[in-house]
Amino acid sequence: MKPDSIRKLLEKVRSGSISPDDAVERLRHLPFEDLGFAKVDHHRPLRVGMPEVVFGQGKTPAQVAEIFKRLAKQGENVLATRATRQQFLAVRQGLRGVRYEATARAIVLRRNRAVYGKGLIAVLSAGTADMPVAEEAAVTAEVMGNEVERIYDVGVAGIHRLLAHRRAIGNSRVAIVCAGMEGALPSVVGGLIGVPVIAVPTSVGYGAAFQGLAALLGMMNSCASNVSVVNIDNGFGAGYVASLINRL
Amino acid sequence: MKPDSIRKLLEKVRSGSISPDDAVERLRHLPFEDLGFAKVDHHRPLRVGMPEVVFGQGKTPAQVAEIFKRLAKQGENVLATRATRQQFLAVRQGLRGVRYEATARAIVLRRNRAVYGKGLIAVLSAGTADMPVAEEAAVTAEVMGNEVERIYDVGVAGIHRLLAHRRAIGNSRVAIVCAGMEGALPSVVGGLIGVPVIAVPTSVGYGAAFQGLAALLGMMNSCASNVSVVNIDNGFGAGYVASLINRL
Amino acid sequence: MKPDSIRKLLEKVRSGSISPDDAVERLRHLPFEDLGFAKVDHHRPLRVGMPEVVFGQGKTPAQVAEIFKRLAKQGENVLATRATRQQFLAVRQGLRGVRYEATARAIVLRRNRAVYGKGLIAVLSAGTADMPVAEEAAVTAEVMGNEVERIYDVGVAGIHRLLAHRRAIGNSRVAIVCAGMEGALPSVVGGLIGVPVIAVPTSVGYGAAFQGLAALLGMMNSCASNVSVVNIDNGFGAGYVASLINRL
Amino acid sequence: MKPDSIRKLLEKVRSGSISPDDAVERLRHLPFEDLGFAKVDHHRPLRVGMPEVVFGQGKTPAQVAEIFKRLAKQGENVLATRATRQQFLAVRQGLRGVRYEATARAIVLRRNRAVYGKGLIAVLSAGTADMPVAEEAAVTAEVMGNEVERIYDVGVAGIHRLLAHRRAIGNSRVAIVCAGMEGALPSVVGGLIGVPVIAVPTSVGYGAAFQGLAALLGMMNSCASNVSVVNIDNGFGAGYVASLINRL
Amino acid sequence: MKPDSIRKLLEKVRSGSISPDDAVERLRHLPFEDLGFAKVDHHRPLRVGMPEVVFGQGKTPAQVAEIFKRLAKQGENVLATRATRQQFLAVRQGLRGVRYEATARAIVLRRNRAVYGKGLIAVLSAGTADMPVAEEAAVTAEVMGNEVERIYDVGVAGIHRLLAHRRAIGNSRVAIVCAGMEGALPSVVGGLIGVPVIAVPTSVGYGAAFQGLAALLGMMNSCASNVSVVNIDNGFGAGYVASLINRL
Amino acid sequence: MKPDSIRKLLEKVRSGSISPDDAVERLRHLPFEDLGFAKVDHHRPLRVGMPEVVFGQGKTPAQVAEIFKRLAKQGENVLATRATRQQFLAVRQGLRGVRYEATARAIVLRRNRAVYGKGLIAVLSAGTADMPVAEEAAVTAEVMGNEVERIYDVGVAGIHRLLAHRRAIGNSRVAIVCAGMEGALPSVVGGLIGVPVIAVPTSVGYGAAFQGLAALLGMMNSCASNVSVVNIDNGFGAGYVASLINRL
Amino acid sequence: MKPDSIRKLLEKVRSGSISPDDAVERLRHLPFEDLGFAKVDHHRPLRVGMPEVVFGQGKTPAQVAEIFKRLAKQGENVLATRATRQQFLAVRQGLRGVRYEATARAIVLRRNRAVYGKGLIAVLSAGTADMPVAEEAAVTAEVMGNEVERIYDVGVAGIHRLLAHRRAIGNSRVAIVCAGMEGALPSVVGGLIGVPVIAVPTSVGYGAAFQGLAALLGMMNSCASNVSVVNIDNGFGAGYVASLINRL
Amino acid sequence: MKPDSIRKLLEKVRSGSISPDDAVERLRHLPFEDLGFAKVDHHRPLRVGMPEVVFGQGKTPAQVAEIFKRLAKQGENVLATRATRQQFLAVRQGLRGVRYEATARAIVLRRNRAVYGKGLIAVLSAGTADMPVAEEAAVTAEVMGNEVERIYDVGVAGIHRLLAHRRAIGNSRVAIVCAGMEGALPSVVGGLIGVPVIAVPTSVGYGAAFQGLAALLGMMNSCASNVSVVNIDNGFGAGYVASLINRL
Repeated sequence: MKPDSIRKLLEKVRSGSISPDDAVERLRHLPFEDLGFAKVDHHRPLRVGMPEVVFGQGKTPAQVAEIFKRLAKQGENVLATRATRQQFLAVRQGLRGVRYEATARAIVLRRNRAVYGKGLIAVLSAGTADMPVAEEAAVTAEVMGNEVERIYDVGVAGIHRLLAHRRAIGNSRVAIVCAGMEGALPSVVGGLIGVPVIAVPTSVGYGAAFQGLAALLGMMNSCASNVSVVNIDNGFGAGYVASLINRL
Repeated sequence: MKPDSIRKLLEKVRSGSISPDDAVERLRHLPFEDLGFAKVDHHRPLRVGMPEVVFGQGKTPAQVAEIFKRLAKQGENVLATRATRQQFLAVRQGLRGVRYEATARAIVLRRNRAVYGKGLIAVLSAGTADMPVAEEAAVTAEVMGNEVERIYDVGVAGIHRLLAHRRAIGNSRVAIVCAGMEGALPSVVGGLIGVPVIAVPTSVGYGAAFQGLAALLGMMNSCASNVSVVNIDNGFGAGYVASLINRL
Repeated sequence: MKPDSIRKLLEKVRSGSISPDDAVERLRHLPFEDLGFAKVDHHRPLRVGMPEVVFGQGKTPAQVAEIFKRLAKQGENVLATRATRQQFLAVRQGLRGVRYEATARAIVLRRNRAVYGKGLIAVLSAGTADMPVAEEAAVTAEVMGNEVERIYDVGVAGIHRLLAHRRAIGNSRVAIVCAGMEGALPSVVGGLIGVPVIAVPTSVGYGAAFQGLAALLGMMNSCASNVSVVNIDNGFGAGYVASLINRL
Repeated sequence: MKPDSIRKLLEKVRSGSISPDDAVERLRHLPFEDLGFAKVDHHRPLRVGMPEVVFGQGKTPAQVAEIFKRLAKQGENVLATRATRQQFLAVRQGLRGVRYEATARAIVLRRNRAVYGKGLIAVLSAGTADMPVAEEAAVTAEVMGNEVERIYDVGVAGIHRLLAHRRAIGNSRVAIVCAGMEGALPSVVGGLIGVPVIAVPTSVGYGAAFQGLAALLGMMNSCASNVSVVNIDNGFGAGYVASLINRL
Repeated sequence: MKPDSIRKLLEKVRSGSISPDDAVERLRHLPFEDLGFAKVDHHRPLRVGMPEVVFGQGKTPAQVAEIFKRLAKQGENVLATRATRQQFLAVRQGLRGVRYEATARAIVLRRNRAVYGKGLIAVLSAGTADMPVAEEAAVTAEVMGNEVERIYDVGVAGIHRLLAHRRAIGNSRVAIVCAGMEGALPSVVGGLIGVPVIAVPTSVGYGAAFQGLAALLGMMNSCASNVSVVNIDNGFGAGYVASLINRL
Repeated sequence: MKPDSIRKLLEKVRSGSISPDDAVERLRHLPFEDLGFAKVDHHRPLRVGMPEVVFGQGKTPAQVAEIFKRLAKQGENVLATRATRQQFLAVRQGLRGVRYEATARAIVLRRNRAVYGKGLIAVLSAGTADMPVAEEAAVTAEVMGNEVERIYDVGVAGIHRLLAHRRAIGNSRVAIVCAGMEGALPSVVGGLIGVPVIAVPTSVGYGAAFQGLAALLGMMNSCASNVSVVNIDNGFGAGYVASLINRL
Repeated sequence: MKPDSIRKLLEKVRSGSISPDDAVERLRHLPFEDLGFAKVDHHRPLRVGMPEVVFGQGKTPAQVAEIFKRLAKQGENVLATRATRQQFLAVRQGLRGVRYEATARAIVLRRNRAVYGKGLIAVLSAGTADMPVAEEAAVTAEVMGNEVERIYDVGVAGIHRLLAHRRAIGNSRVAIVCAGMEGALPSVVGGLIGVPVIAVPTSVGYGAAFQGLAALLGMMNSCASNVSVVNIDNGFGAGYVASLINRL
Repeated sequence: MKPDSIRKLLEKVRSGSISPDDAVERLRHLPFEDLGFAKVDHHRPLRVGMPEVVFGQGKTPAQVAEIFKRLAKQGENVLATRATRQQFLAVRQGLRGVRYEATARAIVLRRNRAVYGKGLIAVLSAGTADMPVAEEAAVTAEVMGNEVERIYDVGVAGIHRLLAHRRAIGNSRVAIVCAGMEGALPSVVGGLIGVPVIAVPTSVGYGAAFQGLAALLGMMNSCASNVSVVNIDNGFGAGYVASLINRL
């Protein structure tokens, strides 16, 4: 072990076989990792209850199962995103309590059910086709210990549907808003509430939607100042950021 | 005159100096324009009151003045778009009744004040910076004989401002909606009313607005089915299309 | 029911147990939806005969069938766009009178055959490969109660083919023009007639067509002022906008 | 006043000249704004101390001065972003206590010096050329009542410079990270801390930087899950979002 | 037949039952196509030997076979491009002399073997992967009656391979140059000879080749002034243009 | 001089002081340029009458004047493109017969007035704003010894204007077609004639024209097979290619 | 043989039947390839040990096998990149010693095991998904005779993982850095060491990663001056360039 | 000073007032920078003679002068890139020996004239307009102690001009190749030599050159395997990378 070599050096200092000045010099030339310095982490409390996560896309069921089970040994919640039912079937073998969230395309192992979020996270989607992304965000936030309010299919072309949920939206401490096509929903939601809005462009749409580019550009240019944006279809990232905010 | 040569041909047919068959053959080899065929235009009534238009951008004041005055001789309304005050000063010399619409950047000569539009055209803008484009649309519609209702600064991040004008918007027969940045307003307006919405992306914004590209893509992907789109900053085109619709 | 609570409040006003002023105050703090305010809709007449619509793409035959049948209970025309024959077979089970328009990729249930459009809608396509989009537009317009004139395969590289239909085009009250590749047809058609032209870029082409982007940009920049544009391959949107215009 | 008409209606209910049922019906057909419903705002406390803001770019000194002074009458802090020194000179005339932050290109009127943020906001920049954007973010956060720690010129190509500030970064409750060129800094910072990171791409760079597009895309694809992104050069938006988070 | 109605009109003129003036007037109001005016075509000689062409991509074998056979009835050469072997098998049934050019992905029926081209057309390709496009160009040129010299796999990174064919290239009357990836070959060839060069970007490459966009942009910016460009992978278009030039 | 060393080698062969075999070997190791091999140029006749050309943009008047005068010493025609009047004034000093073509932005010195082109080159432009590019093409073609027919302002939105020139277009041996905005004109012209069409996208337009990109993409996707394309605003290149074709 | 004709010419010179001057003239008009001049190659030593390479993608197993075996006859190392296991199985038949590197997707025949590289090549990857590209680079470098140090999964969001390998990185003579998503790793590595860094963007990522474009742009804009970039996923190119550098 | 606190800790170890184990623990919790660990730098020798560099663009003459003079105090060579003559005039005041390289737009202070490069660096440019970038590369390489061979105006459209320098190019140990427009030169050069080629796309060109994007994409897709690429117009980066390679 690395600290051993340092201990030996210090023993020599104690025994007087090496001077403190020389020891300083030799310490200075060691690579820093030999000292085993951990990351300074003032946010340890925020980290409690963080799930272990695996990105399922492009992996075989066997690979996902192996990684998932290894992570499960940490004793924390485990989440696999972009996961297929086949991957789930592989994970389920020999692991109890694991669940497949079909719409979210997520495999969930929920061991720690403590609530870390201080308020409500609202998850909105513009259309039903945006639901997989919205559900990925919602499930992520739940696994990270938050209470989630789902408000789906409230696209801006039917503004009354959105306004009908104004009270629920207004009760949230942070909102996640998923929308494809023109990606206009975050701006409207951002104008309705005074808390942070995490916008998620989705690849829903066709033609000039360009796989989410139109929605992404729209959200980057939101005229509501409380909106920030994550990658196209990145429901996990939105759920993660919202959870961090909700723990503050 | 071209018809003359045909008349001569027909005279020969009448006098028998040429047979009908030969005449058919010779007619067949004439270029069609010699017959002076006009465009079949079943929409002549729609054309009454159409203004003469000159695009001012990139032209010298002298050029604009010359073109404007030549057009003014037709006796109809004349409109110069993307026009500067300098161009206006040149036009004004020796031409009465001409007016400069500063916000719209338009020079207007209004002779025919008849109303051709059957209803109201609503012109909306998301922000104050979109006003030059919105005004270009409004002035165009007015010059083409329409009653125009201006509803400005009703961007989606303050949805209540828009909803406060719901009645006025609902009274329109066709709506023009100008917006830069994320370009979301047409979708919301499209959802509020059951008439055609002409969307105009503007180059307002910075960074990822990419000079109107973000708004353009957003509007092309509008989730409201009654929205069609014209070019970035093309207030004139929107006013023109809306006027045509309003005359139907 | 929400209005009940208001009625109770009003009963108290009548009985004098609450003053009008207090009632005003309490009404003011109710969320607006409790009042059940409908959208102000001055265009109700325009809405008559509007079809119920489902977007088939990405849905299973069972899902389409379920939605279609639920919509069919409204008693109006029903239209499924981007629908496969498999989806049609599922819809057809237990539902009479439903028809599959193969080229348009549409499932149609036509119950209301009233004509709402005041004139003719011309639907043009540049090439035979654009026909699915053109047919989607045409079928949409028909389901919405319009008489439609199809003029296909009249691309600009054979301008005489287009000109041969000049009379039919000139008779239309609004025209829909579908074109892929360079997307030039709307400009030419726009120049021939004095009514609104709805341009539909299609994803037909290869290489630098970039899935319809070339046609989209071309149409956005049309030198004909009566052209507005909908999304790539959005035949439905074009048919919908044209129908709204034709009802005016 | 609108509530007056309602009051009159209620008077009639009380007097019995109209039945509660009829009153319900008449209320139902009023536009909602006549009831003067305010936005449901559960976040009023978060709103306290929010500055009034004007976007200076593209406005004349006179326009900025006029808007600024009108906003100043609200009694709150006032902030003008993207402001020139000329605009400042115009604002300063007849308004005490106003200050020009040259690097941030901001005009600041600080009346309310209360601290609303619960912790520290760290503002980092990759290079010295990113400082105007970083300062815009920092000044915005300060005007909104936050304690700000500036950590500038810590680009990833000299990772030791960044690591030397690890403790300060680790002490923040939310971090703002501004970077142009490859925009890599947010990912590294995101990995060092467990709190939300607001990434701001800047237009710093040349060639393939494409005015901030490279940085924007980089940040959207950050491999750190706690990163969300605002528009290119949008220091104000980042400061605003971070302030909202820090008030939670 | 349309000319009949004109003939009838002329008969009336001859018989005196209608005056020439009236006949002129009635002719003026006929649509021009009734006169059967052919295109003015001073290039008839250039058109001799032009093949009938069908674009195979996206069509079923049955569709291609039907179109091909209908075209074959004209008695001219017939060419199907982007054709599969399955389409060929369908075409071959009941049609003699038809041939499948596998590399060119073309079905060829060569009936007219006259040579119309006045000189040699050189067809060059940068790599072996560009051969399908180059062969499409070569086969097109051959079917149109040209002598073709194929010079393949002479990419610029091995400039000596190209220079070894300098004499053959120098003998050509027009050159077609196909290249993917960086698309540099046309510039080099353009510098070696004084005749027109038709450049064809191909979709060969990966990553930043962006399906031929890199090659397309490169060729558009060629520093050789005798280069013009056709669409990505458009071997047919290149062969066609080159054939037209070679007939002059 | 390089050939001298070869001559010396050959003298040694003659004198017998070196064997032919050794001489072959030594020749083989010489760099090829020592042999002074000229380009094999079978197109020498095509080169007669080629002008010397200088690209004026970005150069000072003094630089243009110096280069121009040096080129003028060759005795051939000299052409400066993208030239300003200031550059012309500098060139004119001390050089007779030089002319400034203002619209084409070209400085021309015409010494050789022989006609090398075998037929007519038609130069078309869609709008008046495209004239500088069209004139650059026309002047280039004239300087290279061609007869040029200018047909301007015949954009596709007024197809009758184009058709009115059908005979003149039909008489051309090669056509150059310049268009900005949607760039549709080349396709229409290509369909009218059977000779090569050189398309020149121009940067005319605004918004989604993207400085000529829309026109460029449109022309690359032309549905007319006889169209090939040069760079945006590259009137010179079009004139050059057309001249080469017209000499064949 | 070509030199024969030159030898004959020289024999005539020797015999006096042709003068040296005439011989010079005739040599001057020969195409240079008749002299058989080889490329001047001062870097022959660098070329020793270069492998023969075949690009497997898009080729059938039979094609790869045939090319591979033909190359194997040169007696040097042979490498097939982008190769499938099926291609490997075809190659293995009748060829000894060939190996399939599954992660690198490479078929390797290693005959020459000499070490040509003067130092260590470090190959780093940001994530495990970048490993195929990194392995392609590593295997290429090994086949070209280099010692390779693999340092994988050291993405910038966990900067300590990278720093833990600082010594190994610091020992390298040239580094290859593969990263997808934001592509930030090369900048950090470039800042840690004073030797050339070859950056390889990978297509790893989704959404706004745009198949490697985000990483490519990021790397092009690296703030570390010792970084140069190869094509997306071009592990081979990176291994090749690094090997050339390491041989210097 | 930080090491002091460590020294104190070690003194306590020596005096026995703290045990080695406790000292290890306390060291472990210190931030690493307190130990003052320098970067492990095995490439110190490579760093000798590295110039101090300042990027002039966007800085005032006074700012450049101040930074330049501060850097000059290090006693090493100093280089300012993208510098104007105005900036030079400011730098020159009070600093001897400073020189302005006008074409390279560089200010140079050359104190150390030692040669660190082991061979020749060839710097090539395609056109004269690329010279500023090429000169920036050349001057950078010279300031870093390399012998540089300039080979300018050897674009691929005149391949003989390039081949005439084949020997000089072949003598180089590393080559820098600058080209705008189609950016084809690096591929040709890469094929001629067996050493690393650093390609620099320049923003030279117009229209579809898109400010260097066409050249950048072309170079990224080079079919020569020894090419890697730096940012558009980044002559400094190319000179820097080439210098690092040439020192190996």
